[in-house]
Amino acid sequence: MTSLPPGADVSKATLADVAQAAGVSRATASKALNNRVHVKLETRLRVEAAAAALDFTPNFFAKALNSSRTNTIGMLTSDLDNRFVLPVLLGAEDAFGSGSLSVLLADARDDVMREQLHIETLLSRKVDGLLVVGRTTNPRSPVGLPVDVPVVYVYAPSTRETDTSFTPDNVLAGRLAARHLVETGRRRIALVNGEPSYAAARDRALGVTLELRDHDLELLSGDSLFGQWGERWGRDCARLIAQSHPEVDAIIGGSDHIARGVIDSLTRLGRRVPDDVAVIGFDNWDVLVSESEPPLSSVDMNLEHLGRVAAQALVEAIGGAPRTGLHSETVHLALRESTRPSVTDDH
Amino acid sequence: MTSLPPGADVSKATLADVAQAAGVSRATASKALNNRVHVKLETRLRVEAAAAALDFTPNFFAKALNSSRTNTIGMLTSDLDNRFVLPVLLGAEDAFGSGSLSVLLADARDDVMREQLHIETLLSRKVDGLLVVGRTTNPRSPVGLPVDVPVVYVYAPSTRETDTSFTPDNVLAGRLAARHLVETGRRRIALVNGEPSYAAARDRALGVTLELRDHDLELLSGDSLFGQWGERWGRDCARLIAQSHPEVDAIIGGSDHIARGVIDSLTRLGRRVPDDVAVIGFDNWDVLVSESEPPLSSVDMNLEHLGRVAAQALVEAIGGAPRTGLHSETVHLALRESTRPSVTDDH
Repeated sequence: MTSLPPGADVSKATLADVAQAAGVSRATASKALNNRVHVKLETRLRVEAAAAALDFTPNFFAKALNSSRTNTIGMLTSDLDNRFVLPVLLGAEDAFGSGSLSVLLADARDDVMREQLHIETLLSRKVDGLLVVGRTTNPRSPVGLPVDVPVVYVYAPSTRETDTSFTPDNVLAGRLAARHLVETGRRRIALVNGEPSYAAARDRALGVTLELRDHDLELLSGDSLFGQWGERWGRDCARLIAQSHPEVDAIIGGSDHIARGVIDSLTRLGRRVPDDVAVIGFDNWDVLVSESEPPLSSVDMNLEHLGRVAAQALVEAIGGAPRTGLHSETVHLALRESTRPSVTDDH
Repeated sequence: MTSLPPGADVSKATLADVAQAAGVSRATASKALNNRVHVKLETRLRVEAAAAALDFTPNFFAKALNSSRTNTIGMLTSDLDNRFVLPVLLGAEDAFGSGSLSVLLADARDDVMREQLHIETLLSRKVDGLLVVGRTTNPRSPVGLPVDVPVVYVYAPSTRETDTSFTPDNVLAGRLAARHLVETGRRRIALVNGEPSYAAARDRALGVTLELRDHDLELLSGDSLFGQWGERWGRDCARLIAQSHPEVDAIIGGSDHIARGVIDSLTRLGRRVPDDVAVIGFDNWDVLVSESEPPLSSVDMNLEHLGRVAAQALVEAIGGAPRTGLHSETVHLALRESTRPSVTDDH
């Protein structure tokens, strides 16, 4: 596939040898091997094949001793057993790129002591930067770092304003859900919310309330009904609402789980979704929304995007251009049958 | 907290200095710093504090140049956006230990080319071993490795018998589900299964069939009803079964999703779960089973355990003691209300 330069000493191949064998410039060969910038996959594979044939393997450890970069990122998660972490991680891994940056993964299990040990290990491995992935959107204390390494917080923002944090805009999420219901003719809207200790629940309630106020409306029950995150709370609370406020024409579930429980109860009570009551959730979790009966409208928190922009910001910070401050990233509506406007609607 | 030895030159601290300052033996200090064996957290923290005070930091890069070990494991996933990967990853991360081994994460996105590039990057970083995490239990081709590095396959086993693979025992899973139903008095049992292209679906069907045969029974419909993995298929198929086989007294769903759909249809048709029909699923996915109405019995695939034993086997392989072959790991029943024996049962 690749021709060796005549007389090449394979044990002492240089970058020039690799470039010649691959038929590219030295600059291109270097870029391809170091993945510093975007190089066409075909070119990269040709250069890598030449490097392999010449036994030219960049030694990352020798490099690390001689340079300030290891091209390694530390990704510190608080709780891998959390479905919100996965898309964030996926987006970050994607942004760090196939091969250009390697990701050292460390999971702290929501344990401060364990987190500190992980940080020390990551630093001893001379990571170029640290991505700290939280398990909720509740602000968290900054990590303690004995050395100056760029850090970006994602999902759970840092409480220190001069840090760089990325979190989904849950106030906007609440606004979008309420706005959609109002724009499709609903007026008697209740909010069955998650646990009040979660910033996500409080922020979504705030967004819903602000948006309704913009339309001279308020929540049917007067306030957000905080409870738990699961289907059971959705079922129980929806049953109470249907009894105490039979005029209800829309219920916002604080999560897709809650919304599924709401639909379940309404259906068992003979209330049609969406003809009698529209239902919308938050998170747009595919396995819950798409096969719901009817399919569930939801607010998508753009978590993969969130992971990607946070990772990009970390790369920029490593390059000397940090994007300090709290960045509330946008979210979007994912509309399905459960909020279809009623054709017999006479609002 | 820790006292410095008098006259210690902090820039040239030795392991002996650290041990003296921490009040432990050199062997214990070494173990604590290298995490080779289990050391009490308290001891470890004391040694680490002493090492920090003396500016004694093990340099992993210098070490890597001088030894054959980097204490780094490559974890190659096929598809991070897959809920089955998360518990496996969690178990593996746990086994590799807090700080003792670092995990380089690479996600191939179910793309052969991308997987090969990731493997090259991981090898150039001189990982001690590679854990290959599949996205289904379908056997996969072995990864191509230009050098001799231990590899362990988990979830998706390698097709090469001399490789080391760990996968959940789906035949046993099918047997356990069927056995539980028979032992609780059910006789007219149907299986609403997932996609037949999945080994998991076929293995579970085989287990159910074998177990029923042991009790001189067969599936109500004569065979496993293959379809899709989602709730919708569970709903549609359960409706058909209730019509064509009204005598049905138990339905096994090929996954928790399918089982949820089955419960949904039976409830809407006025069939009581579990009094008229028992329902059981597979995977024991907390968010689907515990808040189901009624709560759903399921077969737990022990995925976190699976990740842990695969990681341990990789560490053993790196140490020179590979556990070659296919290891089908055990699974267990998680019983809830949906399969409670009917009190009026007269079988």
